[in-house]
Amino acid sequence: MKIVLDMMGSDKGTQATKEGARLFHERHPEIELIVVGKKEELSDMEAEGFRLVEASDVLEMDMGALEVLRRKESSMVKAIEYCAENGCDAVVSAGSTGAFLSCSALRLKKIEGVKRPALVTNFPNLKTGGQVTILDIGASIRNTAEELVQFALMGTLYSQAVNGIKSPKVRLLSNGAEEGKGSEEGKAAYQLLKGRADINFQGNEEPSKVLTGDSDVIVTSGYDGNVLLKSTEGAAKAMSGLIKKAFKRSLLSKIGYLLSKKGFDEMKATLDPRSTGGALLCGVRSVAVKGHGNSDALGFSNAIEVAYRLANKGIVESLEKAMGD
Amino acid sequence: MKIVLDMMGSDKGTQATKEGARLFHERHPEIELIVVGKKEELSDMEAEGFRLVEASDVLEMDMGALEVLRRKESSMVKAIEYCAENGCDAVVSAGSTGAFLSCSALRLKKIEGVKRPALVTNFPNLKTGGQVTILDIGASIRNTAEELVQFALMGTLYSQAVNGIKSPKVRLLSNGAEEGKGSEEGKAAYQLLKGRADINFQGNEEPSKVLTGDSDVIVTSGYDGNVLLKSTEGAAKAMSGLIKKAFKRSLLSKIGYLLSKKGFDEMKATLDPRSTGGALLCGVRSVAVKGHGNSDALGFSNAIEVAYRLANKGIVESLEKAMGD
Repeated sequence: MKIVLDMMGSDKGTQATKEGARLFHERHPEIELIVVGKKEELSDMEAEGFRLVEASDVLEMDMGALEVLRRKESSMVKAIEYCAENGCDAVVSAGSTGAFLSCSALRLKKIEGVKRPALVTNFPNLKTGGQVTILDIGASIRNTAEELVQFALMGTLYSQAVNGIKSPKVRLLSNGAEEGKGSEEGKAAYQLLKGRADINFQGNEEPSKVLTGDSDVIVTSGYDGNVLLKSTEGAAKAMSGLIKKAFKRSLLSKIGYLLSKKGFDEMKATLDPRSTGGALLCGVRSVAVKGHGNSDALGFSNAIEVAYRLANKGIVESLEKAMGD
Repeated sequence: MKIVLDMMGSDKGTQATKEGARLFHERHPEIELIVVGKKEELSDMEAEGFRLVEASDVLEMDMGALEVLRRKESSMVKAIEYCAENGCDAVVSAGSTGAFLSCSALRLKKIEGVKRPALVTNFPNLKTGGQVTILDIGASIRNTAEELVQFALMGTLYSQAVNGIKSPKVRLLSNGAEEGKGSEEGKAAYQLLKGRADINFQGNEEPSKVLTGDSDVIVTSGYDGNVLLKSTEGAAKAMSGLIKKAFKRSLLSKIGYLLSKKGFDEMKATLDPRSTGGALLCGVRSVAVKGHGNSDALGFSNAIEVAYRLANKGIVESLEKAMGD
């Protein structure tokens, strides 16, 4: 198995991506990692035996989706192209999401039958301690009912491959739990999903229940999924700020923090975005994983781990088969 | 000023609404409150001098938007009709949102020029300690660019009246901060808003920044606003659960809780949904406020307080004037 890594994409620099690649390599020495980026920053990795593909340019994090295509020498474009041209199993980047989506859409072929690729990620389920898979979180704006049905299938395969859930419970994101609630495309998808024997469809889920309900997969149009993702991140971040404030209030509360620190460290670990490892662009003919923009070594190694698991479980082949049925 | 109260709508029963009405009455004895509901449950209020309008029926909380219109004897329908027919200043209910929206839309006339009423609420801004106004949070599914521009105007008037902000900063909810990002209707609204001298338009806001940025008003289509609202509520609730778990972890952490309790009580107060008092249906010719379904006495009195402030500041007249310009 070959996994291609864009080494220049993280806000935290090549120190983080190099350490992350090495962490992954220690766990899985049998997997070939191809590192893409500036020779002067990656020569130590080359000396350690990693294959180096040179790229002289680095994309900015706020890079627009269209500009990227003019930056042919950038590490992201080179990494995705190398993956496509050499039939590698997976590509991982922590760079700009917009750039990653547009470059992947152009350079990695779509799986036959897939109408629209979807960006897929795991959220922690704070009730069960497990994970809930959400798609699309931003590859599209609005999706058709038929696209949503395909997302339900992709999400099922992802949940099986990454989270090890045999028959994942799939729900549509909606403004109400009852049938008949939701966006126009959601209501139409509901009717199509009811008739699918290959999807364990359980109806609608309200956004307030995503983190604490029993859904394994949440299906939504990309714009709404993006609002769900970012609202949740925003609320979690805001509350973390309030917790800090509460503990800093007085000398007593600071002692209170020391006494309850273990529990709050566990909480922090549960919410750590690095634990989800990033988002998969599902529906293209390679595993394409977008790590968090501010990936440190642990985050980047987890993103590679997600790519590895998806490739190892043959998610591309499973999806090709499902689309062919 | 006359405010009509649906006394039967709260999950917590008439004990809560009666206590809430009395709390408000103590603060504002000059305001006439009309209490609508079952005579046998409200006879004590009648004895205290409140005007009683009898209603023999009570709507269920999961009442659909259409069924409500057949329930003419219900307290919600009677309250809204009484408000409309007697030219009262405001009506307040803690009953089903769907029922409240459809009944208000039919019985309360729209302000001339308003394309679609919007459901408006305040969120706590966890950075400034102030409030951020969000609309639409669910009166519509998708809105046109022209409707979004009207929402920006309504939100400005609401922020001025309820939050006392002179020139509220208005932003469009979007999947990216830059111009050119967003839903189709959002992008079109962006162009229209740039040219408005009467709105302090500041561009896009990502959902992750709503609670911690410097926006005073966030404008969005109803479905996306509903996702924002419920995702935030869900994340806050899930984190509250994690905080409890962290403190319950051991004897030491329980002592830690006791030492830092004051700070966490302040945090709880900041996040208390009762403090926002409910949501205004903006764009109709009375002040129509929907309180939280599980309003207790404090929550219901705050919902009446919001209705009072909006009526007192003449939000309906301001909006009529703005629409006429």
